Amino acid sequence: MEIFIEPIGKLINEFSKLPGVGKKTAQRYAYKVINMTDAEAQAFASAITDCKRRVRYCKICGNFTENEVCSICATRDKSVICVVREPRDVIAMEKLREYNGVYHVLHGVISPMDGVGPNDIRIKELLARIDENVKEVIMATNPDVEGEATAMYIAKILKPLGVKVTRLAHGIPIGGELEYTDEVTLSRALSERKPL
Amino acid sequence: MEIFIEPIGKLINEFSKLPGVGKKTAQRYAYKVINMTDAEAQAFASAITDCKRRVRYCKICGNFTENEVCSICATRDKSVICVVREPRDVIAMEKLREYNGVYHVLHGVISPMDGVGPNDIRIKELLARIDENVKEVIMATNPDVEGEATAMYIAKILKPLGVKVTRLAHGIPIGGELEYTDEVTLSRALSERKPL
Repeated sequence: MEIFIEPIGKLINEFSKLPGVGKKTAQRYAYKVINMTDAEAQAFASAITDCKRRVRYCKICGNFTENEVCSICATRDKSVICVVREPRDVIAMEKLREYNGVYHVLHGVISPMDGVGPNDIRIKELLARIDENVKEVIMATNPDVEGEATAMYIAKILKPLGVKVTRLAHGIPIGGELEYTDEVTLSRALSERKPL
Repeated sequence: MEIFIEPIGKLINEFSKLPGVGKKTAQRYAYKVINMTDAEAQAFASAITDCKRRVRYCKICGNFTENEVCSICATRDKSVICVVREPRDVIAMEKLREYNGVYHVLHGVISPMDGVGPNDIRIKELLARIDENVKEVIMATNPDVEGEATAMYIAKILKPLGVKVTRLAHGIPIGGELEYTDEVTLSRALSERKPL
């Protein structure tokens, strides 16, 4: 005999598909759903289908949007393009409320180990956006091997086009301590030291 | 401007209602949903509404069921009733695959601090089940203040009816160490020591 009755077992199974959710956590989520009112459960289910149905990718920058073109592409300064890996990186940048340019979401990084080449991410689309109005492209991919390689690769293509290409600075995080900074970061912080 | 577009913001909000889920985790869950196929998202949403719609409480024991009477009440030895607080405690007992009796889910414990009295939990329903066929009632509420009090209260009512009332044993957990056992548990283990 199954320990869980079928609808509960199924829901636990669905919750277990979420990142970092194991059987125990999925069980707690399922109990929470059972204790919701009908309206609450309905709202939860609709939020899932709605999100899946209404969210698509901006045809210019590749960020999430409900329309053809996202609100950032529609309203902001197009002379600066910030290149990121995923839509979630746009969120991280937007939280700053400092950046007024537009974005370009690559939807991945070059990673030969995973079989991802330059043609598998949105580099062509980035090149198509470069014209005389674009003054700067900020490479904001993650500072890991694939992110660095992707930034280098794109910079190499863009420079001959006469565009200024920059990269987010690397170094010791604010509030961090020398003693606990890893060697690669410390070495970068040293080589990129600045005059005071 | 909102950082998240509306359908994503809504879904994040729904996920944040799950126990122990904060904004960051809810965001990760929402991204996961966006990256699901339509069919997967649909299955997830249906699992929620299905679970809410199909699961009800067994009219005898109060456990989760899809029918009037749960499969445990329908098939098992009715001479022993194990009294637990929540349906999830039934799952914990069932995982043992040792117990062959039936259950009674109280859906709470007596807790004057939270305004929960004996009439707010399913004690009346338990008393209604006691007849000459019931040989033993096992009190399996949690070993905390409310659980103990509830067990004592029910035992006091049941004993005059001539039913054997037992309580799960307390003591040092298997694999535990004397040194790290809390004093209350150790004191219980001492007072309930057994001849070898």
